[in-house]
Amino acid sequence: MTHIAFIGLGHMGLPMARNLLKAGFAVKAFDLQKNAVEQLAAEGAIAASSAEDAAQGASAVVSMLPASRHVEGLYLGENGLFSKLAPGTLVLECSTIAPDAARHVHAAARERGIELLDAPVSGGTGGAAAGTLTFMIGGAASTLEKARKLFEAMGKNIFHAGPEGAGQVAKVCNNQVLAVQMIATSEAMAMGVANGLDPAVLAEIMRQSSGGNWTLEKYNPWPGVMPHAPASNNYSGGFMAELMTKDLGLAQEAAQASGNSTPMGALALQLYRLLIKQGKGKQDFSVVQQLFVE
Amino acid sequence: MTHIAFIGLGHMGLPMARNLLKAGFAVKAFDLQKNAVEQLAAEGAIAASSAEDAAQGASAVVSMLPASRHVEGLYLGENGLFSKLAPGTLVLECSTIAPDAARHVHAAARERGIELLDAPVSGGTGGAAAGTLTFMIGGAASTLEKARKLFEAMGKNIFHAGPEGAGQVAKVCNNQVLAVQMIATSEAMAMGVANGLDPAVLAEIMRQSSGGNWTLEKYNPWPGVMPHAPASNNYSGGFMAELMTKDLGLAQEAAQASGNSTPMGALALQLYRLLIKQGKGKQDFSVVQQLFVE
Amino acid sequence: MTHIAFIGLGHMGLPMARNLLKAGFAVKAFDLQKNAVEQLAAEGAIAASSAEDAAQGASAVVSMLPASRHVEGLYLGENGLFSKLAPGTLVLECSTIAPDAARHVHAAARERGIELLDAPVSGGTGGAAAGTLTFMIGGAASTLEKARKLFEAMGKNIFHAGPEGAGQVAKVCNNQVLAVQMIATSEAMAMGVANGLDPAVLAEIMRQSSGGNWTLEKYNPWPGVMPHAPASNNYSGGFMAELMTKDLGLAQEAAQASGNSTPMGALALQLYRLLIKQGKGKQDFSVVQQLFVE
Amino acid sequence: MTHIAFIGLGHMGLPMARNLLKAGFAVKAFDLQKNAVEQLAAEGAIAASSAEDAAQGASAVVSMLPASRHVEGLYLGENGLFSKLAPGTLVLECSTIAPDAARHVHAAARERGIELLDAPVSGGTGGAAAGTLTFMIGGAASTLEKARKLFEAMGKNIFHAGPEGAGQVAKVCNNQVLAVQMIATSEAMAMGVANGLDPAVLAEIMRQSSGGNWTLEKYNPWPGVMPHAPASNNYSGGFMAELMTKDLGLAQEAAQASGNSTPMGALALQLYRLLIKQGKGKQDFSVVQQLFVE
Repeated sequence: MTHIAFIGLGHMGLPMARNLLKAGFAVKAFDLQKNAVEQLAAEGAIAASSAEDAAQGASAVVSMLPASRHVEGLYLGENGLFSKLAPGTLVLECSTIAPDAARHVHAAARERGIELLDAPVSGGTGGAAAGTLTFMIGGAASTLEKARKLFEAMGKNIFHAGPEGAGQVAKVCNNQVLAVQMIATSEAMAMGVANGLDPAVLAEIMRQSSGGNWTLEKYNPWPGVMPHAPASNNYSGGFMAELMTKDLGLAQEAAQASGNSTPMGALALQLYRLLIKQGKGKQDFSVVQQLFVE
Repeated sequence: MTHIAFIGLGHMGLPMARNLLKAGFAVKAFDLQKNAVEQLAAEGAIAASSAEDAAQGASAVVSMLPASRHVEGLYLGENGLFSKLAPGTLVLECSTIAPDAARHVHAAARERGIELLDAPVSGGTGGAAAGTLTFMIGGAASTLEKARKLFEAMGKNIFHAGPEGAGQVAKVCNNQVLAVQMIATSEAMAMGVANGLDPAVLAEIMRQSSGGNWTLEKYNPWPGVMPHAPASNNYSGGFMAELMTKDLGLAQEAAQASGNSTPMGALALQLYRLLIKQGKGKQDFSVVQQLFVE
Repeated sequence: MTHIAFIGLGHMGLPMARNLLKAGFAVKAFDLQKNAVEQLAAEGAIAASSAEDAAQGASAVVSMLPASRHVEGLYLGENGLFSKLAPGTLVLECSTIAPDAARHVHAAARERGIELLDAPVSGGTGGAAAGTLTFMIGGAASTLEKARKLFEAMGKNIFHAGPEGAGQVAKVCNNQVLAVQMIATSEAMAMGVANGLDPAVLAEIMRQSSGGNWTLEKYNPWPGVMPHAPASNNYSGGFMAELMTKDLGLAQEAAQASGNSTPMGALALQLYRLLIKQGKGKQDFSVVQQLFVE
Repeated sequence: MTHIAFIGLGHMGLPMARNLLKAGFAVKAFDLQKNAVEQLAAEGAIAASSAEDAAQGASAVVSMLPASRHVEGLYLGENGLFSKLAPGTLVLECSTIAPDAARHVHAAARERGIELLDAPVSGGTGGAAAGTLTFMIGGAASTLEKARKLFEAMGKNIFHAGPEGAGQVAKVCNNQVLAVQMIATSEAMAMGVANGLDPAVLAEIMRQSSGGNWTLEKYNPWPGVMPHAPASNNYSGGFMAELMTKDLGLAQEAAQASGNSTPMGALALQLYRLLIKQGKGKQDFSVVQQLFVE
């Protein structure tokens, strides 16, 4: 391997790139925010002056960008990276974007002989820092094997979800279920407490019973039930409600494309938009609990 | 202890009473269906000719009945059991009924010095047969201690949910979350498969990620993903959709009484009623998956 | 006719009783609030010291009370009015209560030979004052004919909805549709304005098109579109959100009893409960518009 | 004026073009289906061999196409009509497409000095044949004045909704309200009938009361209530459920773009998708009634 080009050093990308460095990879990084690039350079990365500069001669590219339009802007078009990369280059596209957009980018990569994986993550900034992210990956299994060491430097669970776009599909499916069960748990906590139950007792009963889910296990939305959960820290940290809203929007976009009916997922999106109207978009997504208490 | 009166030998009550017998308790049993009584008598119980006959001289009464009106009919009123039982008798009321109805029965018991617990179960007929039910219990902690051996003969997880009615509240909260996440999981499975994912792969990714929940762990609604789940057996066995609909109705009754907003729980109830209109009320509640596939 | 007994002189009952007086009927009135009775007495009514006193010798009783338990408390039981009224007495029960409760009261009336109509109203305090209420009436058509002049003194549209309880059923059906279309209109107004449309222009287009409904005709929820609507007067006056919430709860109670699926009605109830959590229960129900704007 | 180019002779376009002919306009028409072109030619139109052929020398173009991609394909790109039309040409784009797509097409037209109006219709095939369509129009008021005679040949209500794209916004707002109130009316009809009311009586009470809406006025979903409504004709004719589903999808696309919360509209879309899964997409959209009856 020569070096890894890393494009996008935001809240997620920066710690991911750092973990590649720690694992011994040479990383050449670019972001529109120069100070992020400088910060990583201080830790051993090579600073690039542009995405093209970063990608020059790279054996692999990792990108972590906010939305479809940034990903398409980076790779497609006359001046896009796909027109510069050598055939056979590995591309790990880790942004969360619409499945259709991912398939579109895959098709362009294929034409140029570039080996692309759509590889969105879950696990938040905490998982990015700890190198324990979950990767849900779409594309050829053989490509995944070539990229495995890179994924293992950044994450813990490396899932091959299926063909092109399948990583994004798995991600939106997972996050839609997560959002719905966060809201369902919040409703139940509020109803139980209003009916005289101790929140910690109710949470523990449901956690051990058929109502059990990840939010009850790791991330209870009622303040004080779990000392380390965002709910117990004024709903700070964690995964912002506006990012969950973005993911629920992507899920609805996918459902629209395939004609699926998802009443729970659709309602979750609408309730998160109500939260955003109330100015709570920057708080952790468990702040949806506050819709249900006075 | 003298004997235990057991009232209500249905799909749940019969195996529960059988487990009391196995644990060495003397059981005197009654049900309106004579053959259920005879069946249990053949296994060592004493057959009673009426609820009153069963309760005569009992140190404890266990009841397992379909709905609030049966419970109120059994215990309240001029000829109700509360007017016959000795003060200090333990009553384990295991039916799933509205929290308000449970509190009403508690108040009547208290007046007569009878020690009542509302103790609805989860775990289904399988758990009832195996003696692994979960009990969610409302009433005095000291009463629960007196009854603990009886609960342990029938179940595995014995939770003290709180004061009078708290067992019912915990049960409806739990089952509401369960119904919502069953539907959310079904929506996501259908959307993922429609977008080209293998159902077993998607199920496994979500199970290990933040979308994880009890239905993904034990009870996947997509046929074939889990060989022993009802979904893989034509949605037979398990917990009937019409019983889940009943529990969701009780949850809405509780939400109405306390003024709680539960958009997900309310939508779950409406979707289950659509299923019942389609004639699927007798199938396992994971049959909700069929709403979302052609 | 001798006199009319009027029980319940609240925001609705007082102006209704006043219209009976204006139409020339002798009215003997009772309310737990003495000053309401005194106010009506000053306008020509006879003040009664109790409901029983009011009903003594009356040829008809009109009642307008807050909820089922008040209606049942007034008429049923050992000391209830049904045990005092002469057979053949007309009873116009105008409160909005659950259909099941209405049927229960009808059954008790029938046993005593009393001719009861369930006759809930729509039209609000404005309609009560102007004598333009709509009555939706359940019970025998022949009874309605005997009572017609009384209804005509208080209202404009006198509908025979059907047999016992049918008035209440029609009322909850109507108000459920009203709540849903108020919310749907609010959503559309917010979405149109956010997309650059003038609210008055959008309102007028929908009013004249297939989206047309009563809220667009009379009661637009966007401030300023209709100068006389509550929305243009800080959502004051009109029909309080908490009363709409009560009616939506009655609708869900009826749906529960008959097993109907009403996803829109159920969602409307949950959204109104969110509003009440936000402290807006005393404002006009068109305040639901505020859920959808920042 | 020279001639009018008419592109798209489907169920809506053909009768609209016919009405232009009847009003005395010269029409040169094109559709991919040759027999539609021949049919119109037999009635006096000039048959065109391509869209470009139709538009050659036209003073105005009217287009009526299925979706955004067809509209963009027709007008944009190197070979699109905008590159052929003379500056100042009027374009009446009558298709129902996403507001964002409409704005995109507007921007391209503006660059070329072409006077475009987005002008989606409501009124269905019946209104198209009778020349009584409603047009909701976005673009310059002065352009609308130039095009007014064309609109008046095809429709009755000609609304200027606002600037570019406003026609599409008004259309999706209107149709979202329509879908929601159709479902709300269906729920209420089913609940009322299940509770013993005569459907015609309930329909009439709500129509005259605060639950009144266009579906109760013109288009009752309960079979038999209105002899000429699709519901009374096996849900045939009218406006297909799959077209309503398309419009609800466009509304959600608009809501996504502007961040609006529309819980009722989102739920309506999901319920219509359930109907389509049940194979009812080709029936009139009032067939949603069947979700709520056994």
